[in-house]
Amino acid sequence: MAVWGERLAGVRGVLLDISGVLFDSCEGGGVPIPGSVEAVARLKQSQLKVRFCTNESQKSRGKLVGLLQRLGFDISEGEVTSPAPAACQILKERGLRPHLLVHDDILSEFDKIDTSNPNCVLIADAGDAFSYKNMNKAFQVLMELENPVLISLGKGRYYKETLGLMLDVGAYMKALEYACGVEAEVVGKPSPEFFKNALQVLGVEAHQAQ
Amino acid sequence: MAVWGERLAGVRGVLLDISGVLFDSCEGGGVPIPGSVEAVARLKQSQLKVRFCTNESQKSRGKLVGLLQRLGFDISEGEVTSPAPAACQILKERGLRPHLLVHDDILSEFDKIDTSNPNCVLIADAGDAFSYKNMNKAFQVLMELENPVLISLGKGRYYKETLGLMLDVGAYMKALEYACGVEAEVVGKPSPEFFKNALQVLGVEAHQAQ
Repeated sequence: MAVWGERLAGVRGVLLDISGVLFDSCEGGGVPIPGSVEAVARLKQSQLKVRFCTNESQKSRGKLVGLLQRLGFDISEGEVTSPAPAACQILKERGLRPHLLVHDDILSEFDKIDTSNPNCVLIADAGDAFSYKNMNKAFQVLMELENPVLISLGKGRYYKETLGLMLDVGAYMKALEYACGVEAEVVGKPSPEFFKNALQVLGVEAHQAQ
Repeated sequence: MAVWGERLAGVRGVLLDISGVLFDSCEGGGVPIPGSVEAVARLKQSQLKVRFCTNESQKSRGKLVGLLQRLGFDISEGEVTSPAPAACQILKERGLRPHLLVHDDILSEFDKIDTSNPNCVLIADAGDAFSYKNMNKAFQVLMELENPVLISLGKGRYYKETLGLMLDVGAYMKALEYACGVEAEVVGKPSPEFFKNALQVLGVEAHQAQ
């Protein structure tokens, strides 16, 4: 504890990842990583401010939090920073109307976004929805735009499920970047803005966070 | 004709592309590009040696040539350099057993290749077979190899069909390169070996070809 005490000197807040850190997802649910339920409970009982910071983009925040609660975690929707709400903010600020290539389970996050006559493409970890047909449609939308804008919720290479490694959105982002000759704008980790936003909600400076 | 005479001074052979040059493909067939049937006929009546050099990897050479013949082109299978046979040569030479992610229509090109217990991944323009499931399987095979080898038949960004632009194999090559941290070996254009092989068959040096 003395070592931890030293390491935590000056630390006021903790950002926790979710997938692969608190739990491994699997078909229809997930499995907590041993010790993680207790670790979250102890952190929340401490003086430290805690926020969950995830690139999860296959599930809405509501669904993700519901799953975590069922697995025994003390967590609420308001404690989670995830890329879809951050992206919605950007879309609104810049008057962007996305063609969405996302998992059905996060479509609800874009309920209030105008998707008519798209002037950008937004992709997330779409899983099986990354079909050739859907990828080709996203590609064609980008190629028809005078100033193509590609927004990607994260740029992960892969993630771990109980069944093994799974291709993440970053691979498909690279495919569209190459085909269209564009560079994607990444919303989510490791974008500094994403972390800053999470810290701002906690009221903690970057040097005070772990 | 005088201008052409000058431009062709010293030229003994001509390599012709096929898709997008001789014809545009479409669902179930293709449409010749105006003037191309006649141009091929005139070239073949001339003193020039002619060979067709294509990255087409959705159809076997047999099917491609059959289609071109139906469209009116004077062409035979032996006159075509395409990436699948070139790849088979490489696989045999290096003792590589591929996990194939290719279109059903070119599976026959790999009839004589051992695909058991794969020690590499080979991708081609697989069209609808570029599903998430199939891409994920190719990714997992690569990740399990100590020395991952990814072979890509071409690295085109997209090609034109009568219905519009279509994502080509290069986009999916980039996706796997990024996810696995590997660099693909490209068989087909623009690889110099591929052109050299086509010229060798013609018996023409590079400086004598157009």
